[in-house]
Amino acid sequence: MQIAIDAMGGDFAPGNVIEGALAAARSAGIGLTFVGPEERIRRELDRHPPLEDGAIQIVEAPETIDMAEAPAAALRRKRHSSIRVAAELVARGEAIALFSAGNTGATVMAAHSTFGLLPGIDRPALATTIPTLTHAAVLLDSGANVECRPVHLVQFAAMGSIHARIELGISSPRVALLSNGEEESKGNDLTREAYRLLKQSPLNFIGNLEARDVYTGRADVIVCDGFTGNIALKISEGMVEAAQELLREAMSHTFSTRFGYFLSRRAFRYFRRRVDYAEYGGAPLLGVAGACIVGHGRSSVKAVRNAVNLASRFARQGTLQRIEHELAPQTTAAGRGPVEGSSAVS
Amino acid sequence: MQIAIDAMGGDFAPGNVIEGALAAARSAGIGLTFVGPEERIRRELDRHPPLEDGAIQIVEAPETIDMAEAPAAALRRKRHSSIRVAAELVARGEAIALFSAGNTGATVMAAHSTFGLLPGIDRPALATTIPTLTHAAVLLDSGANVECRPVHLVQFAAMGSIHARIELGISSPRVALLSNGEEESKGNDLTREAYRLLKQSPLNFIGNLEARDVYTGRADVIVCDGFTGNIALKISEGMVEAAQELLREAMSHTFSTRFGYFLSRRAFRYFRRRVDYAEYGGAPLLGVAGACIVGHGRSSVKAVRNAVNLASRFARQGTLQRIEHELAPQTTAAGRGPVEGSSAVS
Repeated sequence: MQIAIDAMGGDFAPGNVIEGALAAARSAGIGLTFVGPEERIRRELDRHPPLEDGAIQIVEAPETIDMAEAPAAALRRKRHSSIRVAAELVARGEAIALFSAGNTGATVMAAHSTFGLLPGIDRPALATTIPTLTHAAVLLDSGANVECRPVHLVQFAAMGSIHARIELGISSPRVALLSNGEEESKGNDLTREAYRLLKQSPLNFIGNLEARDVYTGRADVIVCDGFTGNIALKISEGMVEAAQELLREAMSHTFSTRFGYFLSRRAFRYFRRRVDYAEYGGAPLLGVAGACIVGHGRSSVKAVRNAVNLASRFARQGTLQRIEHELAPQTTAAGRGPVEGSSAVS
Repeated sequence: MQIAIDAMGGDFAPGNVIEGALAAARSAGIGLTFVGPEERIRRELDRHPPLEDGAIQIVEAPETIDMAEAPAAALRRKRHSSIRVAAELVARGEAIALFSAGNTGATVMAAHSTFGLLPGIDRPALATTIPTLTHAAVLLDSGANVECRPVHLVQFAAMGSIHARIELGISSPRVALLSNGEEESKGNDLTREAYRLLKQSPLNFIGNLEARDVYTGRADVIVCDGFTGNIALKISEGMVEAAQELLREAMSHTFSTRFGYFLSRRAFRYFRRRVDYAEYGGAPLLGVAGACIVGHGRSSVKAVRNAVNLASRFARQGTLQRIEHELAPQTTAAGRGPVEGSSAVS
């Protein structure tokens, strides 16, 4: 089955996107449908060894939505953008999943409007896998919705639990609300009401999580609105980069520290691998009725490869079907078609 | 002049608090008024060499507000808590500044209700100094207000600019809004409206700052609501701790990396010093009509020493008088008394 690739999405598109997707296809037998200006894609493909016949398809999409464009206006104006055309392939069943490292807002809106939402879900959420000292955890929403209501956070918690069970193999994921303190009284209006609702839910809710405990591994599913989630992840990324820079600087001071750095470079590589977003490659958009993986705007070749692998795995594991099965309102679930057949929202 | 010290505030009080404050008093000629149970304070003081006559006073306060207590209820119930009694010393002019490493919410409320707010300010903000790759910057609000309106963020920006000018010596501080993207269209309802207001202000407003740029030094004053600010700082703290743990682990793998770690330990010390919150010690509460420095709940001896030094410097530098002078509504400013004389709010 094919993965629809927005060939023009991201700061280093189409170069990194095509090279990374080809690497995934080669190692895991994934079919690729590149979406974008055909000429440009062919030129890029010519720089790499060919795959077996039929493994690669190209679907023409002349327009590109830039990283800085306002998503809603851009999607309205550009009816033939690569991200929209790629999403439509999934909606028509011609691909099992969509990957884009482009404009996150535009990708979320294209997937939302083309796939529609799963029954029982009011907002989709980006679920980012993060490293902790003990194991991998999921943080959501990492950027799909800047404004959320308490019931949305509860839906994120439920979807995140199912995703953590399937993708991370955690049988009863510990769910926590990201907050400014552990006590029930801490938080803003949004999280305090979500706390009340989560306490009554059947989820394994362990309460509030202070941000300093995100990386200790105390929780498996960390829930917040998309504005807070974006800040939390991006500041961590910036912190790691600044720390590496400071350490490099510190270690160049004397001969013995330079020699020490030389000896410990293997440890540094190990460290970077543990905290590198590229290991996970992309974040699934949970709650829409089709598989969509959103990549980092600055995705490296390796990040794209891992994200395309994730897209294939995510679609095959049936996480969305599981979410539909477990979360759809009981009275209406029976009458609905399969996830892939859900109709468009707008 | 005396600094009023909440001797019972913090996870390691009164031990670290008293030892750190004594170190500051010894090196900088600061007078200390310890507030708390007199017996307990005397026992702790007996463990250290005495200071010169009159440098230390003790004011009895039999009650303590714990870290996990709900601030408003605790302050109502405990009329003689160490934090409230210490704040009252400043309001009466018997001390020039207040320091507490205790319950942040209770400290903010005690200072707010005892000192009152400066004219033109609707909410106080905690201004935390953070390290960046190029210089120190200020992030506010780091935790005084979990719910903010756009006009509050504008007031934070103005107060933060004055503080950065005086404390960090930056003549025209670059002010930025912490957001989920650089473009004007990014952000939530709160930050988008604050953006519009800041553009019209006389401040040196440079727009939105993505969280990944907080530590690159692109902005001098980083403005956000207190919920977001708390998450941003606490997750950074957790990230540094996790990174240190991972590096230590990685470096113990082989003899050469262990040897490398041994040689580079000086670099590690330098690194830790650069990112250590204890270097700054505490955050001034801007906007209240009296000097108040809030310390980290887990303050070390060194953090307390630096925070008490900051308290003395902050009061002498006249930052609050400057804020009052520059931000008070022109029509009413003339009729108001000095900062120290402002009346209580509640």
